[in-house]
Amino acid sequence: MAKELTKRSDNYSQWYNDLVVKAELAENSAVRGCMVIRPYGYAIWEKMQQELDRMFKETGHSNAYFPLFIPKSFLSREAEHVEGFAKECAVVTHYRLKNDGTGKGVVVDETAKLDEELIIRPTSETIIWNTYKNWIQSYRDLPILVNQWANVVRWEMRTRLFLRTTEFLWQEGHTAHATRDEALEETMKMLDVYTNFSERFMALPVYKGVKTENEKFAGAVDTYTIESLMQDGKALQGGTSHFLGQNFAKAFDVQYLSRDGRLEYVWATSWGVSTRLVGSLIMAHSDDHGLVLPPKLAPIQVVIIPIHKNEKQLTEITEKAMKIKKLLEAKGLTVKYDGSDTQKPGWKFAEYELKGVPVRLAIGPRDLENSTVETSRRDTLKKQVVPADGIDRYVKDLLKDIQQNIYNRALDFRNRNTFRANSWDEFRGVIERKGGFVYAHWDGDPETEARIKDETKATIRCIPFNMDQEEGTCIFSGKPSKRRVLFAVAY
Amino acid sequence: MAKELTKRSDNYSQWYNDLVVKAELAENSAVRGCMVIRPYGYAIWEKMQQELDRMFKETGHSNAYFPLFIPKSFLSREAEHVEGFAKECAVVTHYRLKNDGTGKGVVVDETAKLDEELIIRPTSETIIWNTYKNWIQSYRDLPILVNQWANVVRWEMRTRLFLRTTEFLWQEGHTAHATRDEALEETMKMLDVYTNFSERFMALPVYKGVKTENEKFAGAVDTYTIESLMQDGKALQGGTSHFLGQNFAKAFDVQYLSRDGRLEYVWATSWGVSTRLVGSLIMAHSDDHGLVLPPKLAPIQVVIIPIHKNEKQLTEITEKAMKIKKLLEAKGLTVKYDGSDTQKPGWKFAEYELKGVPVRLAIGPRDLENSTVETSRRDTLKKQVVPADGIDRYVKDLLKDIQQNIYNRALDFRNRNTFRANSWDEFRGVIERKGGFVYAHWDGDPETEARIKDETKATIRCIPFNMDQEEGTCIFSGKPSKRRVLFAVAY
Repeated sequence: MAKELTKRSDNYSQWYNDLVVKAELAENSAVRGCMVIRPYGYAIWEKMQQELDRMFKETGHSNAYFPLFIPKSFLSREAEHVEGFAKECAVVTHYRLKNDGTGKGVVVDETAKLDEELIIRPTSETIIWNTYKNWIQSYRDLPILVNQWANVVRWEMRTRLFLRTTEFLWQEGHTAHATRDEALEETMKMLDVYTNFSERFMALPVYKGVKTENEKFAGAVDTYTIESLMQDGKALQGGTSHFLGQNFAKAFDVQYLSRDGRLEYVWATSWGVSTRLVGSLIMAHSDDHGLVLPPKLAPIQVVIIPIHKNEKQLTEITEKAMKIKKLLEAKGLTVKYDGSDTQKPGWKFAEYELKGVPVRLAIGPRDLENSTVETSRRDTLKKQVVPADGIDRYVKDLLKDIQQNIYNRALDFRNRNTFRANSWDEFRGVIERKGGFVYAHWDGDPETEARIKDETKATIRCIPFNMDQEEGTCIFSGKPSKRRVLFAVAY
Repeated sequence: MAKELTKRSDNYSQWYNDLVVKAELAENSAVRGCMVIRPYGYAIWEKMQQELDRMFKETGHSNAYFPLFIPKSFLSREAEHVEGFAKECAVVTHYRLKNDGTGKGVVVDETAKLDEELIIRPTSETIIWNTYKNWIQSYRDLPILVNQWANVVRWEMRTRLFLRTTEFLWQEGHTAHATRDEALEETMKMLDVYTNFSERFMALPVYKGVKTENEKFAGAVDTYTIESLMQDGKALQGGTSHFLGQNFAKAFDVQYLSRDGRLEYVWATSWGVSTRLVGSLIMAHSDDHGLVLPPKLAPIQVVIIPIHKNEKQLTEITEKAMKIKKLLEAKGLTVKYDGSDTQKPGWKFAEYELKGVPVRLAIGPRDLENSTVETSRRDTLKKQVVPADGIDRYVKDLLKDIQQNIYNRALDFRNRNTFRANSWDEFRGVIERKGGFVYAHWDGDPETEARIKDETKATIRCIPFNMDQEEGTCIFSGKPSKRRVLFAVAY
């Protein structure tokens, strides 16, 4: 078979890359670090967008669009923000090309130099808060609950399809509020939206918590995060929700007249998820045969394949298959019938396994005789012959079961790979030999955190919400600690 | 009233700008030529996207995503293409900023200069055909039917909200075919999709035809267009569909092995519409009171406003209004109930007229007594008191009627402002005094076309499909002509 994948156990990283390319999800482009998202990969992103967009609107948000370009000077207005992003900015310096004189190519027209360089947005807080200044005068103008679907650019040195690319697609919510409490509430509400999306749609359980100073968003007061576990034991940050305090309001002088007539700085949040989620979806559930997609995000939920020896059989099977397709579509399912004659059934089976279609139905001459259908579920690869009568309810239930099973499997894996370490040796042992999440005591010092990272590559993924206060001593420094934090080596 | 607009008859251009800003559709940003699309304007674009995306998918297309950046050298591969776009390209030359030394700002890090400059895509034929080269080996890989929703940048010197901005949002379809006929068929199919969308959703009638050599897309063999008429007598190009022949396949060496085993160059099309459509929607239908939106693209189709003197009345009216809202929503309509107490009913009436909500329902104490509702339609501003019973069917029919009426009005206006001119004086007279479309004979010489443009600003919008062959003489040169072409001054 031409499309065989590297095995996960042989080389997880190569397996991932093989899978992304061979399932035609994405590929590297001619531009360093930028990917082409192919139709099948984009269809997964579209399903994600649909659900997220619905959830954003249900929580009162509207979409808008702000410029791709950010004047260079805007970036410097918030000190931590510029520190965080300046080193990875694509910079537009000119606005015209001209003939190179030989007639064969073009060169930059030096007479068309911009007075002030423009940055391609790495994130849009600065241009948006510069805009909000004009939208906000009084408390009546608040809150502003806006989201943007957009492309952003961060000049990454080491890139990886979906997980880390120079250009990526994302959504960024930017909200403005009259009070600190309201902004904090919004921050947590959106973290919950991300949690729901990850667990209910991506079938991917997460740990929630707050980032340390070292790991938070440049310009945030606090960054909240959801963290999930990949099959190689590395963690992945799925989405972040930032409480920005009044930092950007102060940087862009955005004040409002309060109910009692005082001028106050506005409170802010921002929150985002990106095409990186597609990478985590692939990594979390797939196997050596290819993609395993949760039914709720699968572009094709059911594929029907005819098994035939001659044209007459094909015609009869096609007729039956189209009836079943209609029944399933009436239940709201996305169904593909692959009656093409260019490939044999065995090839098709492998192809749709590679592409992660959750349910396969095969119909052969014997099925016609017996009024049966052979079903196969992608998550366990188990087959079952069932009556054609009632196939719609059967498949609907099967998809529900697959969604739940994929989640349970990921939850079980995550739980089995979440450890507690009480000493440095224990900590190193787990991180280096097993991977996974490790709850351990930390003294709260950024310096300690940096040294642990240097020695083990493990970072503090978050200070988790679900942990009780617990006195202890830092695994690295031995100094006192008030609670465990969550460590892992991360993507 | 704070939000009064300039009258169309006083200054059409100022009226348009007032309307876009005061109805909170869009505004200029801090970046020259780039706009901020505000939530209400973006909601209109989202409605457009939804319908177009559905139509693209129904005609067999899938979405994908290609890089924002195009290597400079790619642009030079197709001679006409680079000629057309080189002068309006935003160029990325560096990928890092650094501290300016004073600690107050950032400057471009000169050590981070790109070996080859990157262009922000003005359109994506080059990067996409460079990608298709890897996707296409044999006839089995064809056709490729891909669309992309994206932002593009063309460095415009004179910009105008929605109609011409440096950055704009659009969709660009890029298809690859085995034969010339199939590519031509695709080109026309997508022109028809655009026509349907314009006429059935935007309520905007169009003339269809092919562009002249002077006016066609840089790199196309032929560009097909839909052209509509704005209320000031200027034409607007709503969408274009390009037959690219083998131009890009040759430029990027994309060949396929045909069924009979020969290597052939692939045939191509591309087609696009942009946020410019939002501008034309506004210009075509709106009046001195504000926006007039066709119901099929209105973010809010029905607004319900309570008329009350005290809290008790408001409570009763709200109860009734919520029942009606539910009934209307059950019919698939988008309804807003504005029970806010910060503004008086008169202010709300004006506000939703400004925002172009197609149907307004007002409910007062007398309506409660009589079981009636006061309806007002935005297109004619006519009011009618109708029984509350059956209001859902009434409103549904009313919206249908408004959609049709807006179209009929635009069609009538377009037809009344489409002329035939048989001499140069007649031509100039119409173009300069009335505006509108003018069918006139042209000798087919690009030089003549250019001189007509110099003298009158009128361009050939298209060589229309709907014209019979007709011998005549060119209005400008007096040379023989085989058919009339369609002139207008255009946006």
